[in-house]
Amino acid sequence: MEEESREFTEAEATHNMEGEADEEEIDPESNPLNELLLKRSRTISSNPLAMVGAKVSHIESLDYEINENDLFKHDWRSRSKIQVLQYIFLKWALAFLVGLLTGLIATLINLAIENIAGFKLLAVVHLVQKKRFFMGFIYFTGANFLLTMSAAVLCVCFAPTAAGPGIPEIKAYLNGVDTPNMFGAATLIVKIVGSIGAVSAGLDLGKEGPLVHIGCCVASLLGQGGPNNYRLKGRWIHYFDNDRDRRDLITSGASSGVCAAFRAPVGGVLFSLEEVATWWRSALLWRTFFSTAVVVVVLRAFIEICSTGECGLFGTGGLIMFDVSNVTVRYQVMDIIPVVVIGIIGGILGSLYNYLMHKILRLYSLINQMGRMHKILLSLTVSLFTSACQYGLPFLVECRPCDPTLSATECPTNGRSGNFKQFNCPNGYYNDLATLLLTTNDDAVRNIFSTNTSTEYQIPSLLIFFALYCILGLFTFGIAVPSGLFLPIILIGSGYGRLLGIAMGSYTDIDQGLFAVLGAASLMAGSMRMTVSLCVIFLELTNNLLLLPITMIVLLIAKTVGDSFNPSIYEIILDLKGLPFLDAHPEPWMRNITVGELADAKPPVVTLHGVEKVARIVDVLRNTTHNGFPVVDDGEVPPVGLATGATELHGIVLRAHLLQALKKKWFLREKRRTEEWEVREKFTWVDLAGREGKIEEVAVTRDEMEMYVDLHPLTNTTPYTVLESMSVAKAMVLFRQVGLRHLLIVPKYQAAGVPPVVGILTRQDLRPYNILTAIPHLEVSSKGREKGN
Amino acid sequence: MEEESREFTEAEATHNMEGEADEEEIDPESNPLNELLLKRSRTISSNPLAMVGAKVSHIESLDYEINENDLFKHDWRSRSKIQVLQYIFLKWALAFLVGLLTGLIATLINLAIENIAGFKLLAVVHLVQKKRFFMGFIYFTGANFLLTMSAAVLCVCFAPTAAGPGIPEIKAYLNGVDTPNMFGAATLIVKIVGSIGAVSAGLDLGKEGPLVHIGCCVASLLGQGGPNNYRLKGRWIHYFDNDRDRRDLITSGASSGVCAAFRAPVGGVLFSLEEVATWWRSALLWRTFFSTAVVVVVLRAFIEICSTGECGLFGTGGLIMFDVSNVTVRYQVMDIIPVVVIGIIGGILGSLYNYLMHKILRLYSLINQMGRMHKILLSLTVSLFTSACQYGLPFLVECRPCDPTLSATECPTNGRSGNFKQFNCPNGYYNDLATLLLTTNDDAVRNIFSTNTSTEYQIPSLLIFFALYCILGLFTFGIAVPSGLFLPIILIGSGYGRLLGIAMGSYTDIDQGLFAVLGAASLMAGSMRMTVSLCVIFLELTNNLLLLPITMIVLLIAKTVGDSFNPSIYEIILDLKGLPFLDAHPEPWMRNITVGELADAKPPVVTLHGVEKVARIVDVLRNTTHNGFPVVDDGEVPPVGLATGATELHGIVLRAHLLQALKKKWFLREKRRTEEWEVREKFTWVDLAGREGKIEEVAVTRDEMEMYVDLHPLTNTTPYTVLESMSVAKAMVLFRQVGLRHLLIVPKYQAAGVPPVVGILTRQDLRPYNILTAIPHLEVSSKGREKGN
Repeated sequence: MEEESREFTEAEATHNMEGEADEEEIDPESNPLNELLLKRSRTISSNPLAMVGAKVSHIESLDYEINENDLFKHDWRSRSKIQVLQYIFLKWALAFLVGLLTGLIATLINLAIENIAGFKLLAVVHLVQKKRFFMGFIYFTGANFLLTMSAAVLCVCFAPTAAGPGIPEIKAYLNGVDTPNMFGAATLIVKIVGSIGAVSAGLDLGKEGPLVHIGCCVASLLGQGGPNNYRLKGRWIHYFDNDRDRRDLITSGASSGVCAAFRAPVGGVLFSLEEVATWWRSALLWRTFFSTAVVVVVLRAFIEICSTGECGLFGTGGLIMFDVSNVTVRYQVMDIIPVVVIGIIGGILGSLYNYLMHKILRLYSLINQMGRMHKILLSLTVSLFTSACQYGLPFLVECRPCDPTLSATECPTNGRSGNFKQFNCPNGYYNDLATLLLTTNDDAVRNIFSTNTSTEYQIPSLLIFFALYCILGLFTFGIAVPSGLFLPIILIGSGYGRLLGIAMGSYTDIDQGLFAVLGAASLMAGSMRMTVSLCVIFLELTNNLLLLPITMIVLLIAKTVGDSFNPSIYEIILDLKGLPFLDAHPEPWMRNITVGELADAKPPVVTLHGVEKVARIVDVLRNTTHNGFPVVDDGEVPPVGLATGATELHGIVLRAHLLQALKKKWFLREKRRTEEWEVREKFTWVDLAGREGKIEEVAVTRDEMEMYVDLHPLTNTTPYTVLESMSVAKAMVLFRQVGLRHLLIVPKYQAAGVPPVVGILTRQDLRPYNILTAIPHLEVSSKGREKGN
Repeated sequence: MEEESREFTEAEATHNMEGEADEEEIDPESNPLNELLLKRSRTISSNPLAMVGAKVSHIESLDYEINENDLFKHDWRSRSKIQVLQYIFLKWALAFLVGLLTGLIATLINLAIENIAGFKLLAVVHLVQKKRFFMGFIYFTGANFLLTMSAAVLCVCFAPTAAGPGIPEIKAYLNGVDTPNMFGAATLIVKIVGSIGAVSAGLDLGKEGPLVHIGCCVASLLGQGGPNNYRLKGRWIHYFDNDRDRRDLITSGASSGVCAAFRAPVGGVLFSLEEVATWWRSALLWRTFFSTAVVVVVLRAFIEICSTGECGLFGTGGLIMFDVSNVTVRYQVMDIIPVVVIGIIGGILGSLYNYLMHKILRLYSLINQMGRMHKILLSLTVSLFTSACQYGLPFLVECRPCDPTLSATECPTNGRSGNFKQFNCPNGYYNDLATLLLTTNDDAVRNIFSTNTSTEYQIPSLLIFFALYCILGLFTFGIAVPSGLFLPIILIGSGYGRLLGIAMGSYTDIDQGLFAVLGAASLMAGSMRMTVSLCVIFLELTNNLLLLPITMIVLLIAKTVGDSFNPSIYEIILDLKGLPFLDAHPEPWMRNITVGELADAKPPVVTLHGVEKVARIVDVLRNTTHNGFPVVDDGEVPPVGLATGATELHGIVLRAHLLQALKKKWFLREKRRTEEWEVREKFTWVDLAGREGKIEEVAVTRDEMEMYVDLHPLTNTTPYTVLESMSVAKAMVLFRQVGLRHLLIVPKYQAAGVPPVVGILTRQDLRPYNILTAIPHLEVSSKGREKGN
């Protein structure tokens, strides 16, 4: 019931969105601008469409069910022990490689960003020192402009799916939604290069989300043996040519990505578990953990190498990114008050952020739909605005004198990093806003998290910082470059956290740097609504275990407050993109409708006979878009004890397998059942693994049209089924828990003449919006319920 | 396939155990001594029996499925918004209370143990200082004897289920196995008092496992509104009177227990997730996290209070139990060698430990079966042996001079704690073995984990310590007192870890204290086979984040090595107790058999009519032990379009609900279907929530026997079903994933005369051992497969 009430809110929220969309809408087909703003489906069985990258694509479901047909069973029985060992070894080898490559790529990205951004900033500082302020501005803006342009052009022209963080699509993939071109080689390369460009350009975005996507791309490419056109050949690679194993690999990839981004191995595993993955197994937990361990070892090895100064401007940081372990955390019972306050603020600001982000993403999608040029222009505009603010605003604040206890090398600094930047100030003075703005985002976080520096920042500087990053955080995310959400949110959160720390002043003993950490955590929880994983990530980021209890309280409060307003930012993006994500909890009104009623609202189910005419198969494939067809045997040769009218539900055959049969021309002249060896001569299990192919590519002669295909060996004889009296709520639980693509509905009546299968449910049929569109009276009653209660 | 191969090993292991059991077995019914050594079921449908506490009990499955009958649906529809909010509030309030009470109880236990053990040890030290060694021995042994006796007598006489850790039973409960008397008030109290007694007595066992069980008891009692006979009344309490909500509460309780034991909030949540729970939802993750946060706050508050010295001998420790954060961890690539070595040793020793533990538990169960007196005597023997060794062995090692750099208060010490105990040594000297043995287990761990003390322990002392705790660890666990497995394993592991550290000597820079930590971690992974949760628990125990990468590697290696020998210790105990735990992975041969074949091996399914005669219901309830009966409607009034022979599967009715109908005498004179209001007058949803009652308690007159009951309103109309052609492997996945108690098998044929339900599957039917017993030829082929491959 807790879930139910949450769903009320979500349902209302979704409804609001849709309501607004409806106002703008004229005719979805003739008005392409609105395409992404709406869920496409107008009837349950309409074609599923969603935003992938920047264009509306057909999307398919994945098949996580084991397709137990004769060929699979034979192949499975005939696998030798060596093959089994080979498979296990490969699984671990791939997990190792995923970790290794993700770690290497993350190191490469870090090195590139720190060096590019470092040289850029050093040159600017040099110009500023010579009081050539305008030249500094030109140089700074120009460099950022070029870097942004390279990232945007790459993204727009070569891999539109590389824009954004990629996490919502990964979440959808692991939920069972196949998003085309998400995990290809082009996406991977553009994501790496684009991420380097965008982050070096000083844009208000992080490399964390992109790293998660990079980890998944690496995993997917490894699993299929290389990029599409240059795949490795070999029997072993086909072991992983199925949706289940690819799902596991991508989960490992996502964990490795988070681990590489935050140097947080346990946090990475938990992030996958809590936020990204839909299914989870103990064995997977373990393998994912192995991948992240490899990532950490790689990262640590490079940090070791770089600590000798061989990595240019990479610096000498350790494995802990934002170490705050140097403060002893002392807090009393009364410190609960600032902690609660920060949690509540985080929740409110987080949900406000989500709300505004939703509006801005809708606006941006209108701009992005206008064409490639507009996308690039939008990115460049944001870049110019960012550069101008970052360079110009520090001139507005007054210089502050250095604390005399600090040595001359500590304050002021003119190097790439450092906590007290001189910028435009005279010697012995520093500009606190320049410390926060004229630096990489990572360093900005490090500076604002810095502890035992309670007098460093002035309130006006922090206010400007906070306001600027609120604006930048909202307007930067949707542009066509690889962009992560974590760092912008951390920056905003640390801003108000530190401000609150100053406001609390003498009331509490908690260090201002810790206030900044708590502020960042609260806004992340308020916007992303994660708890355990966020807690562990912050723990691993800051290396201060004693912060844990108050971090937990902040996260819980912020999430609770946020949840009472709107769903998490990822859910909002999933919804905007129209990805058919199946939620863990059925809507309350789904208990009031049976799958039988749902089946009645759909066109009648298309069934095939066990031995079917080629003409009929071609016809069915051409005229429907279904991906699975129930196979029914007529009782021409009835089993012992049954009358002649008996029909038998043999199972379900996939479109891809039918296409294979047509392509391989496995036709029979007479209508008969085949022996198992006959089909094995023609097909191997490997042939059935692929999901490519279109009916238009298959040429069948007129003679062949009159022949037959025996579908029995290709049929999955063990489909999951539900009775027609099953409630949609429980059917959805089954569908999601077992990871299905098709769910057959069988009749509850037993009698001659009743068809053995009365319907078929797919992911689209179980989406609340689709059901309500097809059966509007439910909407009325569910609304009534919402109001009535 | 990885899972498959692992199952081969497990299957072999199980088979070996069973093989051995068979040798001893004569006739299980006439030989009660052997009862627990065997899985009881000889045919699939025999009664399920298992060891609960010390006696063999009938066990039932839990019902995690939502029973969607008319009454539920009405109740659910009629819940007002206020009730929904009330329910949500209560859920959180209960989570809060679970955390609060678990935290308080943990504090109480800690205070009691530290004070009792502290006074005991101080008195002994006092006597030893006066050279009254024999009096010291008498005092030490006598005190331990009395403490052990009190714990054992309580356990044996009042709550046999309180003996042992309780974690296997909790694991089984969350898997869907109801173990009677596990979570009652008596168990809770005995567990608390017994745990204090046993740990204070210096026995080689921990309070960690018991604390997990205590957390679950608290949660269960809160959920049902108090102890069985003194329950709170009120509508609200019935919200939680169902298996689903109780499962969630108990999961929270388990997490709180681990958190209280190790002061590890994140580790506690992860322990529940990885080791204990079978089902998991995001919402539960969050609530569990809240409970552990409350526990940490409570613990911290008391540590704060006790730091002012108001808690007797409780000491001034912080939130980190075994803090090793004072060493800077420096390791190079070559340190991988000792890390790998320690992992391999951990894996080998861990599986050896499991193997020996299995043997000893079988031996102990023979002793325990002889009666209460034998159980108590066994406990007392172990106590005497432990005391004698702990007191006597330190006399064997030579005194060592204190490091002159240490102050006189640091070395030697005569207080309760301290790293350099004087014991029998002259002033200025300390006895290193006394430091490890004559102390509480917690302090022993603290001392052996102590860092920057590389010269403190001599090799002979560590060897004696290691050997002694190997023996004690194996022989203490099975006695009739509350006992945890964590601490004994940590003690053994830290012993060989520290020894290895000394052996490595100058080869590595890693501190010896860290070697002890790694040794403990490796043995835990080698025996318990956890990874992520163990890693986080160790992180939170030791507060040294930089240890994380090497800890991860050690855990992975130790688990891999251990898994290649035998299953985890919890699985071994589950198996010994005969609890029908459903594993996540089906056995490979389960793909070769269909549920239809399984149903054929069982007695025919007993179905009831929609409107059934009372006599038949009574008859069915008396003569079967089934807990669910399919309800089939004859086609006397066939639906439109169907012939008269049509039958309809209406759903499944539970035994408990049938009993309610009989008890409430809800009989009809004529055979008719009732209206919904009629049944609502008689029953509320609350009436159906309980699962108590026996058919023997129901009195039905001869007149009433001829009347009818309309089962339609009581029937769950949305049962999960599978086709008879479904493979057992996939049916098991469904059964476990959705949390079922009954799974109906429907025919794949559609014809007049075919029954609408052909069988029913329960947990017992899906256990590999039961299937192989009923269908022996599968065993042959699966064996053949094992060997052939």
